[in-house]
Amino acid sequence: MTDWTRMTLAGFQRGLARGEFSPLDWWRACRERIDARDPTVQAWECLAPEPAIAAQDGGPPHAPLGGVPVGIKDIIDTTRLPTTWGTRGYHRVDRADMDAAIVTQLTRLGALPMGKTVSTEYAYFQPSKTRNPHDPTRTPGGSSSGSAAAVAAGMVPVALGTQTVGSIIRPASYCGVVGFKPTHGTLSVAGLKALAPSLDTLGWFTRHLEDTRTLFTALTGSPPIRALTRLDGLRVGLCRVPGTHSPSPETAAALEGAREKMATLGAEIGTAGLGASFDELVTHQQVILAYEATRALASERERFEASMSPALVALLDEGQRLSLADYWASRQAADRARFTLSQQLAARFDVLLAPSAPGVAPEGLASTGDPIYSRVWTLLGVPCVNLPLHWTPQGLPVGVQLIADRYQDQRLLSIASALMP
Amino acid sequence: MTDWTRMTLAGFQRGLARGEFSPLDWWRACRERIDARDPTVQAWECLAPEPAIAAQDGGPPHAPLGGVPVGIKDIIDTTRLPTTWGTRGYHRVDRADMDAAIVTQLTRLGALPMGKTVSTEYAYFQPSKTRNPHDPTRTPGGSSSGSAAAVAAGMVPVALGTQTVGSIIRPASYCGVVGFKPTHGTLSVAGLKALAPSLDTLGWFTRHLEDTRTLFTALTGSPPIRALTRLDGLRVGLCRVPGTHSPSPETAAALEGAREKMATLGAEIGTAGLGASFDELVTHQQVILAYEATRALASERERFEASMSPALVALLDEGQRLSLADYWASRQAADRARFTLSQQLAARFDVLLAPSAPGVAPEGLASTGDPIYSRVWTLLGVPCVNLPLHWTPQGLPVGVQLIADRYQDQRLLSIASALMP
Repeated sequence: MTDWTRMTLAGFQRGLARGEFSPLDWWRACRERIDARDPTVQAWECLAPEPAIAAQDGGPPHAPLGGVPVGIKDIIDTTRLPTTWGTRGYHRVDRADMDAAIVTQLTRLGALPMGKTVSTEYAYFQPSKTRNPHDPTRTPGGSSSGSAAAVAAGMVPVALGTQTVGSIIRPASYCGVVGFKPTHGTLSVAGLKALAPSLDTLGWFTRHLEDTRTLFTALTGSPPIRALTRLDGLRVGLCRVPGTHSPSPETAAALEGAREKMATLGAEIGTAGLGASFDELVTHQQVILAYEATRALASERERFEASMSPALVALLDEGQRLSLADYWASRQAADRARFTLSQQLAARFDVLLAPSAPGVAPEGLASTGDPIYSRVWTLLGVPCVNLPLHWTPQGLPVGVQLIADRYQDQRLLSIASALMP
Repeated sequence: MTDWTRMTLAGFQRGLARGEFSPLDWWRACRERIDARDPTVQAWECLAPEPAIAAQDGGPPHAPLGGVPVGIKDIIDTTRLPTTWGTRGYHRVDRADMDAAIVTQLTRLGALPMGKTVSTEYAYFQPSKTRNPHDPTRTPGGSSSGSAAAVAAGMVPVALGTQTVGSIIRPASYCGVVGFKPTHGTLSVAGLKALAPSLDTLGWFTRHLEDTRTLFTALTGSPPIRALTRLDGLRVGLCRVPGTHSPSPETAAALEGAREKMATLGAEIGTAGLGASFDELVTHQQVILAYEATRALASERERFEASMSPALVALLDEGQRLSLADYWASRQAADRARFTLSQQLAARFDVLLAPSAPGVAPEGLASTGDPIYSRVWTLLGVPCVNLPLHWTPQGLPVGVQLIADRYQDQRLLSIASALMP
């Protein structure tokens, strides 16, 4: 019997071509899995009705993503499904006038929207109902909580996420799935609720790294990405984290495991710094986030402040106190840090290896965990991929991330493939 | 009798404070002017009803923009007025769910929306109905056609515009008004129809440069901008334009006039190059525009292609043919050019002086004119201001633009003030 929770995108296309599967098989299997698992995990804000076979039929012939069920984070506009922006009550947006650009792109490639996955409030920190599939007493991380959890629970092979602080890499680490944040601006954010546009990045979650390569190729129309099996001659920079933010033993073990594996595969491992100090860059990321969020959500605050979480109101208050000079200073610092990182990477490293999160998913659902290890990379706009390489004896995942310079996404995924064939 | 078409924002606030004006006086005067002039100019897509005085009363006490009538370009979402994105027919958007962030910001500062000003189709090149107020047989330029024309015709003291190619500076030059494009990302574009997000910049038109200083201060909450009267010791780089794009005699005369005036005021004038070649940067701007527009408007094309102009479809086809590698190469070239320009400006010039448009507004309404002199500056994200300093004997305006490095907006407006007190 087909194990749909382990199916790859390419495997499904091969099966379709051979007539082993019909276009709705995967969609139906996912729906069954959701019925079984979602009462516990609660990854979905709403589910789509079964697509009409006549209309869809797995998409156009040989569509690269024909029949692939996809979860859509609920800050992404959809005309056929309600949108809530992760908020509650009267300011539910319901059906948008237009589909977000990514939704049209995906459906044109043959993908089948499975439903909207739970987001934290406006993709900021206030958690919603989703639980970690590996331990329902723990957070799945956020803000792409439902997307990470849905993929981890085998409910869907692909789900869209966005990262403004650490909203793809951290939940991917906590849920034990591949999470990919491309170079800032690679995919269009038209039709997504903006939080901080110069940071907001659209990406996704998959179970298999191969599927992330397939998706990248399909969504960008670029050539297939070669999966490396050896890393001979490649230079890896191990990112030191300052003492005040030092990772848990689990994260340290995950990092050490990845370092060892990369060395075994032939890579040269060095130690990387960040140019500017880690804490300074974290501060600049927070300034840009608060300043831009306060302006981007000006109308939402005007109308819906009464139902906003204290955490969000605090962010918007912080942004209100920041001056244009503060904001511009942080943007200039980010410009400089991007330039410095590019030079350092060109001279010394092909990729960087860094922790994805401080440890395993924290207990409780009141917080989505600390995004500290993603702030700098989001600020710098570089592509990052979480690899779920380490599991604790209790069965909890701990990821590591590989990072490359902007516009090196394909090379990053190529190198990462050696670690996760 | 008060000449409302010459009123400044500060003058109105003073008059309000002294009780000489009531909060709706300016709004009503503008409405009369619209009734008189708009049958010819056709700058408006729709007009707002008179604000309820009780509700508005010129905004909060001492609101910086209390009672100031503002035109809103029709790619900007409004909940109380329809939005068309400059498009026609069945895909009229009507009232948006949320106001764009800038609309909330303006009304909170006390401004009174006058209506929606005509935009070209999706803020690209296909003209709408607006005519040049100085000669109705000529284009007002685009894409912010209605905003530039409305301010030029004295229908409103302020109107919002956006620039992705040359959509603020060019119509400002053709209409003889001040047009200001801040550093990319200065004002939030949340709730604006995206065309090419890494280029799209929100700015505005005013009759007086003083009003642009006032608006900048009000919208960014930053300290007042000092108006320089002398330019002693300041270094001005005169931008050469390559022969294939050389300006008309009118534009050359406008540039020479500005150069002379700046020299008279004490500035040192040098000649500036662009680092990379002008034509290369123009090409990179076009690549980024086409690639991003094709992705950002994916859903609009899916639904409304039949009613899209051939010019827009050609752009979207061009974007479809571009590869991710093409796009990223242009973004990297833009990154490098920004860095080079910063270094050059820091070392050699306080501001650059360049043409705003190839000549006076072209005859006919079938085209909005050539944005060639804005493409590079939009690509580089730098602040630009059009100054309507030159008029032909036939009464047609020709502007020049001053340009500074990113984040030098206040300094730019400070220096520009010497040319246009």
